[in-house]
Amino acid sequence: MIRIGIFGYGNLGRGVECAIAQNPDMELVAVFTRRDPSSVKLINEAVPVYHADEVLSFKGKIDVMILCGGSAKDLPVQTPYLAEHFNVIDSFDTHAKIPEHFENVDRVSKKAGTVGMISVGWDPGMFSLNRLMAGSILVDGCDYTFWGKGVSQGHSDAIRRIEGVLDAKQYTIPVEDALERVRRGENPTLSTREKHTRECFVVAKEGADLQKIENEIKTMPNYFADYDTTVHFITKEELDRYHGGIPHGGVVIRSGKTGKDRENTHIIEYKLRLDSNPEFTASVIVAYARATYRMSKEGQGGCKTVFDVPPAYLSPLSGSELRKNLL
Amino acid sequence: MIRIGIFGYGNLGRGVECAIAQNPDMELVAVFTRRDPSSVKLINEAVPVYHADEVLSFKGKIDVMILCGGSAKDLPVQTPYLAEHFNVIDSFDTHAKIPEHFENVDRVSKKAGTVGMISVGWDPGMFSLNRLMAGSILVDGCDYTFWGKGVSQGHSDAIRRIEGVLDAKQYTIPVEDALERVRRGENPTLSTREKHTRECFVVAKEGADLQKIENEIKTMPNYFADYDTTVHFITKEELDRYHGGIPHGGVVIRSGKTGKDRENTHIIEYKLRLDSNPEFTASVIVAYARATYRMSKEGQGGCKTVFDVPPAYLSPLSGSELRKNLL
Repeated sequence: MIRIGIFGYGNLGRGVECAIAQNPDMELVAVFTRRDPSSVKLINEAVPVYHADEVLSFKGKIDVMILCGGSAKDLPVQTPYLAEHFNVIDSFDTHAKIPEHFENVDRVSKKAGTVGMISVGWDPGMFSLNRLMAGSILVDGCDYTFWGKGVSQGHSDAIRRIEGVLDAKQYTIPVEDALERVRRGENPTLSTREKHTRECFVVAKEGADLQKIENEIKTMPNYFADYDTTVHFITKEELDRYHGGIPHGGVVIRSGKTGKDRENTHIIEYKLRLDSNPEFTASVIVAYARATYRMSKEGQGGCKTVFDVPPAYLSPLSGSELRKNLL
Repeated sequence: MIRIGIFGYGNLGRGVECAIAQNPDMELVAVFTRRDPSSVKLINEAVPVYHADEVLSFKGKIDVMILCGGSAKDLPVQTPYLAEHFNVIDSFDTHAKIPEHFENVDRVSKKAGTVGMISVGWDPGMFSLNRLMAGSILVDGCDYTFWGKGVSQGHSDAIRRIEGVLDAKQYTIPVEDALERVRRGENPTLSTREKHTRECFVVAKEGADLQKIENEIKTMPNYFADYDTTVHFITKEELDRYHGGIPHGGVVIRSGKTGKDRENTHIIEYKLRLDSNPEFTASVIVAYARATYRMSKEGQGGCKTVFDVPPAYLSPLSGSELRKNLL
C-alpha cells in the first residue's frame, strides 16, 4: 500500500480523496489543513484530519504528500518546505514561474533524498506532455493549444472584484473555425482574439450600473480586452442552477510535415472534455503519486516533472502485464 | 551527433531516412540491405549502402540501428541478432507475439549491455502509451481504439491473393455513429461490425468473375466476414491515381467517471490523421532512437518499450529548456 497524505483540503483536495478511493494500492493516511481540523468534513469520515502544524510528526508514516494549495501563495512556500521531509507532488500551474519553482524544490529534495514532483495536472501536465511528444515526433510543424469550453477560475474572480458584482462565472471557449483550420493542417497564424472567446454570466447587486459593469469587464486588460467577450446578467438562482459545475477541457494539436519534399501532412490531436476540472486534475496527480513513490523506492531524488516519468510508473500493473494487454 | 544505421530499406526505411534529415542531432551512417546494394537508391546519395552481411563490421561505428523489416519473418530473427552488437529499435507490431519478442530481445541485449527498443510506432506505440496513461488516470472507465480512415496493408494483400484479382487497396473506416456514442461518454459495448467498416477498391483481371471475387472478399474469415464490406471494381489507372497513398490514422478514447458518486464523466481522446503511415511511424521511431541512445549512454541495457521511456528523452532540448518552453 502507498501511504498518501493530503495537504490542503479544497476542491482539489476533495478530488484527490475521491481518486485515492479508486486506486486499491493506495491508502489515505491523513489530511492536513490550516483551518480548524474539526471544521473540515471529509467524504470518508474514518480518515483523520490534523492541523497543518502537526504534519512533521507524520515523517516516515506517509510515502507521498499531495499538496492541494494554490499556486499564487501556497505552493511556492509549501512544496520546498515539505520536500525536506516527504516525497511531495503538487499542481503548480503558474507557467512563467515553473523554472524558479523547480530550482527551489530541486535544491531541497536533492539534499533530503526525496522526490519532489511538480506541476502535475492537465496544463501543465498532460497537455505539456503532448506538446513535448508531438513536437519530438513531428519536428517540422506547429503547435496549437486551445482551452475550453470551460470555467476559468481566474477570470471569474476578476469579474467578482468589479464594483457592483455579486457573483460571476466565466467560460473560455475555443473558436470552432480556428480549430477546424488547424485540424485541416493549414498551420494558420492566430491572434489571441481568433483563438478563444469569453462568455461571462454575472449576478449584479441591486441597483448596480449594468452598462458600466459590462464595459469594465470587456475592457479589462490581460483578462478580457484582447478577446471577443459576451456578458449576460442573470440571477443568483440561475447562476447556481445552470453554472454550478467546474467543467473544462481543451485540445493540443501538432500539425507537421514529412517526406522528401514535405509532401505529407500529419495531425496529432490530444483532447480533453472534463466534467470537473479539479477531479480530473486530482486523478492525474494520484497516478503521478504512484510514480513518485516508485522513483523514490528506486533511490531517485530531486525535483521531477511529467517529462521525467516513464509512463509504466503510472500504472499499478507490472511491465509484463502492460506489454501483454496494452502495448 | 547520434550515428544511425538503417537495416532494411522499403517504405519504412525510406521514411526513416527522411525523418533523420529533419533531426540535426542525427547522422545516417549507412543503410544495410539484403538486396544487391547497387540496386538500392537512397534519397541522399551520399549515404553508403551495404549488404546486410557486412553489418557487423560497423560495430562501434553506429549508435543505434533502426530495423525496418517486417514483423512476420524479419524482426523476430533480426532484432535479437543485431541486439547482440548494437543498440537497436524496431516497430514489431504483431500484438499477440510482443511478450515473446520482448523476452528474446531482452535476453540478448541484457547480456550484451545494449538497449533493444521494440514495438515503436503508433499502434503499438503512441496508441499504447495513450491507453496506458489514460487508463492510469481514469481508473474507473472504458477504453476504445478505432483505426482509420486508412489503408490496411494486410487486408489489401489478402484481396490480392484472390484468383482473378490484379491489384487492390482496402480502407478501414471507423463507424462515425459509434465514435460519437463513445465521445458522449455512453461507454457502449460495440461488436466488431459496429466499430469499423471496410471499403475495397479492386482491379480485376480481364474476364474475371466479379461476382465471385466480391463474394470471396466479403466472406473471407478473420479479414472481412465480421465487417460490413463494400467492394468497388475500378481500373488500374484509377487505383494508381486515386488510391496511390498510404494514409492512416485512428483514435484512442478513454471515458471514465470520478467523484463521490461517480457523478462526473471525463473523456480523453488521442487522434492521429496521417497522410503517410510509414513516414509517421518512421518519425516516431527516430524520436525513440534518440531515447535509445540516451538510455544506453546512461548505462541502461535490456529490452525496452515506449512504456519505459521518460518523455524528455525524446526531445533534443535540455530539461530546463523543456520546462521553460513546453511545461
